[in-house]
Amino acid sequence: MALVTIDDIFDAAARIDGLVLRTPLVGNQRLSEEFGTRLLLKAENLQHAGSFKVRGALNALLTWQERGELPEGVVSFSAGNHAAAISYAGRRLGVRVIVAMPSDPVPSKVANVERFGGEIVRTDDLAGTLDELAEQHGFPILHPFDLPEVIAGQGTTGLELCADGPSPDLVLVPVGGGGLLSGVAAAVRKLAPSARVVGVEPATSNAMGQALAAGEVVRIGNPSATVADGLSAPFSGEHTLPHVQAYVDEVVEVDEDAIRAAWRELVESSKLLVEPASAVCLAALRTGVVEAPEGGVTVLVVSGGNADLSRLG
Amino acid sequence: MALVTIDDIFDAAARIDGLVLRTPLVGNQRLSEEFGTRLLLKAENLQHAGSFKVRGALNALLTWQERGELPEGVVSFSAGNHAAAISYAGRRLGVRVIVAMPSDPVPSKVANVERFGGEIVRTDDLAGTLDELAEQHGFPILHPFDLPEVIAGQGTTGLELCADGPSPDLVLVPVGGGGLLSGVAAAVRKLAPSARVVGVEPATSNAMGQALAAGEVVRIGNPSATVADGLSAPFSGEHTLPHVQAYVDEVVEVDEDAIRAAWRELVESSKLLVEPASAVCLAALRTGVVEAPEGGVTVLVVSGGNADLSRLG
Repeated sequence: MALVTIDDIFDAAARIDGLVLRTPLVGNQRLSEEFGTRLLLKAENLQHAGSFKVRGALNALLTWQERGELPEGVVSFSAGNHAAAISYAGRRLGVRVIVAMPSDPVPSKVANVERFGGEIVRTDDLAGTLDELAEQHGFPILHPFDLPEVIAGQGTTGLELCADGPSPDLVLVPVGGGGLLSGVAAAVRKLAPSARVVGVEPATSNAMGQALAAGEVVRIGNPSATVADGLSAPFSGEHTLPHVQAYVDEVVEVDEDAIRAAWRELVESSKLLVEPASAVCLAALRTGVVEAPEGGVTVLVVSGGNADLSRLG
Repeated sequence: MALVTIDDIFDAAARIDGLVLRTPLVGNQRLSEEFGTRLLLKAENLQHAGSFKVRGALNALLTWQERGELPEGVVSFSAGNHAAAISYAGRRLGVRVIVAMPSDPVPSKVANVERFGGEIVRTDDLAGTLDELAEQHGFPILHPFDLPEVIAGQGTTGLELCADGPSPDLVLVPVGGGGLLSGVAAAVRKLAPSARVVGVEPATSNAMGQALAAGEVVRIGNPSATVADGLSAPFSGEHTLPHVQAYVDEVVEVDEDAIRAAWRELVESSKLLVEPASAVCLAALRTGVVEAPEGGVTVLVVSGGNADLSRLG
């Protein structure tokens, strides 16, 4: 299977230019001092619709439009961020969006989808409902992570973090289905070849780790609940797995207590509202499962900000 | 009394360059759509020590150092942000910092001061305790707002917001003692002469409004409690009042319910952790006491991010 290249990512960047925010790379002095590394946050929580997901969604729809294949509607599944992103992109391009979401989603994520006119179908079987929706409506699937166009779009996050700051020595990326990790790793591998790229996933929702161990995609069904709801993918992808195998140094796991503690710490120290999924990278540093390069540059990709405020207090 | 000029602010910017963050001007699409204006946030919550206050603190100490008058220690009073800022600046320059703070401060603000080695004296009489500390230690007062060097330092916030974004039509600034408003207004008046500059203060802590009405400084003693703790100044200043009279179009008030609602809304829509004091500007737009320029550019100065997370939920 052909992997997404740096040229695909540059093309994606040109395609979505002006439609997405070039989010800031925010320094974090407190964490930098504590870890003895220059720690920077790529703040995709500030992105339109509240997460990096608009990058891939827009790149996919615009690519289809260029080919004269823009559909009337698309279907997908999502914990919420991809749903909001494709709703956002769909509204922009006049494409109807129908998306399967968990039966107990984060309320702010539902509001975010509805704000952009997306249609939500709640379900306890995301993958099954997706297939039903695709058949029922005859719309193509705009997959949350397992499409080359989506991976290339998410990769623009990696382009920007390499271009806008000092050359990174370590890049940490949250992992659900692996779309963000695949794209960022493809970009960083080329633009900062000596950097380590490490993916971090919740121990209770480790589809990528299981796939790497098995050497093939593993369907873990509905993963156990994780506070990092954005990372509860039921499987890694046929496309994302080979990208991770080719471009990523390591995928590690963190437990729920570590994610919860890191979530509060990241919000308080960075002054950014981030969602729990974005805290797994700090949790990996805190638990010591990943070591920060002393005197080097560490970039944490902050994937989104659609958090439930009532759970922060 | 001579007012701070644009040249003083440019000098301050050169003096503190590299020691403060040039904070991003963050777009807010949701609020922009709702108010029909291009709404931008000058995100000083991301500043070192969590607020704009380091600008003035560093400019004052560095100015004194240039004159060969750097003291061994300084005293001051503060709800917490100025205390953290002078502790930060003091640590940098080897100056001891002793600061009077309210007896029931926001816990994260205490932690912030202690982190930088500041010494806290808790009191219910900030102004009285300040005088005692100054006499006891023989240290000069590094006033939280009523010093030209502090006003010029805070004014660098105004320089940056004019330089880094589209020319503003309206700039909204939170008001406690008026140091930030004075400095920002001095900068904006010169760099974007047609912009309206409006200060916003809590109705329960309106020292500046009272001073403007009376035409002189009014000591309101200890102001009533406001959720916007950073704005509870016991008086406007001998220096800040004439700046506001000369440079500011209007100072308006917002009530506590409006501040609380705006606080949550600002955090959720911006994905920035801001403190309640920073929400008064959005409260002013929401209550209609200030109207956003339709089709124009509105900048809200987000003063700080040292918030108590447990009160957000």
